[in-house]
Amino acid sequence: MCDVLEQLNALLQERRHADANTSYVASLHHKGLNKILEKVGEEATETLLAAKDAQHSGQLDALVYETADLWFHSLVMLSHLGADHTQVLQELQRRLGTSGLVEKAQRTS
Amino acid sequence: MCDVLEQLNALLQERRHADANTSYVASLHHKGLNKILEKVGEEATETLLAAKDAQHSGQLDALVYETADLWFHSLVMLSHLGADHTQVLQELQRRLGTSGLVEKAQRTS
Amino acid sequence: MCDVLEQLNALLQERRHADANTSYVASLHHKGLNKILEKVGEEATETLLAAKDAQHSGQLDALVYETADLWFHSLVMLSHLGADHTQVLQELQRRLGTSGLVEKAQRTS
Amino acid sequence: MCDVLEQLNALLQERRHADANTSYVASLHHKGLNKILEKVGEEATETLLAAKDAQHSGQLDALVYETADLWFHSLVMLSHLGADHTQVLQELQRRLGTSGLVEKAQRTS
Repeated sequence: MCDVLEQLNALLQERRHADANTSYVASLHHKGLNKILEKVGEEATETLLAAKDAQHSGQLDALVYETADLWFHSLVMLSHLGADHTQVLQELQRRLGTSGLVEKAQRTS
Repeated sequence: MCDVLEQLNALLQERRHADANTSYVASLHHKGLNKILEKVGEEATETLLAAKDAQHSGQLDALVYETADLWFHSLVMLSHLGADHTQVLQELQRRLGTSGLVEKAQRTS
Repeated sequence: MCDVLEQLNALLQERRHADANTSYVASLHHKGLNKILEKVGEEATETLLAAKDAQHSGQLDALVYETADLWFHSLVMLSHLGADHTQVLQELQRRLGTSGLVEKAQRTS
Repeated sequence: MCDVLEQLNALLQERRHADANTSYVASLHHKGLNKILEKVGEEATETLLAAKDAQHSGQLDALVYETADLWFHSLVMLSHLGADHTQVLQELQRRLGTSGLVEKAQRTS
């Protein structure tokens, strides 16, 4: 399971320069950064709406789907600018070492 | 590296019911879903701005930091509603099986 | 000039129950609140990107266009839920009476 | 009523160069465009959440308040970049002349 992001990263790199007529990923890169960021913003909005709907319905499927869409397009964004998931995971790893108290103090300062 | 999300998930579950005065995660859950979603929206905005700045400066540090913040708060959101990263990774895994052509066709339909 | 919002409000009310095949406004109401809110989120994202581009290019046309789109779709949202621009203007009016010092104090408290 | 935006514009221009310690508007300009755009994104998120809550509660007060906040901060953004509400109203005016059919055709093209 834990290597899904690794495989996805390989796929994103391979598709980046694929034919924009047949690859969704290539078409996003071809349209440029603003188009990719519009998709990130769109998926963030859809995630918020799915979360509010899940709050009332208890159904989590749409929320999981939209969150995957948000992560997917943020990976395309990173790839477009020359970064990838490993740097994001490293940053999250760094925070793991932070205790609750320190974490709270850093946030509120 | 690949188990950072696993460790983070364990931490989020442990801190969920911690003291809201000393744990940032516990304080988010205590304030409720809207507060958590405000943070997701806020981090999405900061990610977009960091991406635009990276486009001009070539500096990727802030972009990685903000993307980690976006993922972190979307994990708190999932946790608050009873889901976690494994379901998001499963959904991303499912998409890995999809070829570029199928992927493009699904998106544009 | 000052009655554009008034005229727009009349148009939005008239088109709300128009044929969804010929009116964009009617089609939004027909698709429901989530679709309208997706548009508000989308236009907010496009406004942010246009502002960042304006910062570098000095060109304001796209920014004005996207802000108009954002206001337009927020008026459709208000209309869908039974409110309109007069209540928003009243709230803005209320703030006009607030001096800078009070305003600052309220914000930071 | 119709001159609230006019009065607000005068206030925003006057406060732009006020003391950042006593004026919220001046403090936003002092912090710069990214800070202003973060506020626009934040208020857009809060508007979406208020709309979803209004859908269930029927209470419109928070929605009106958040929409006013969204418009207010988008006016600060325009002011920061050298535009104002008159250009946004002109763009909305231009759309008033567009019939439903034309409007729909433009949107879907």
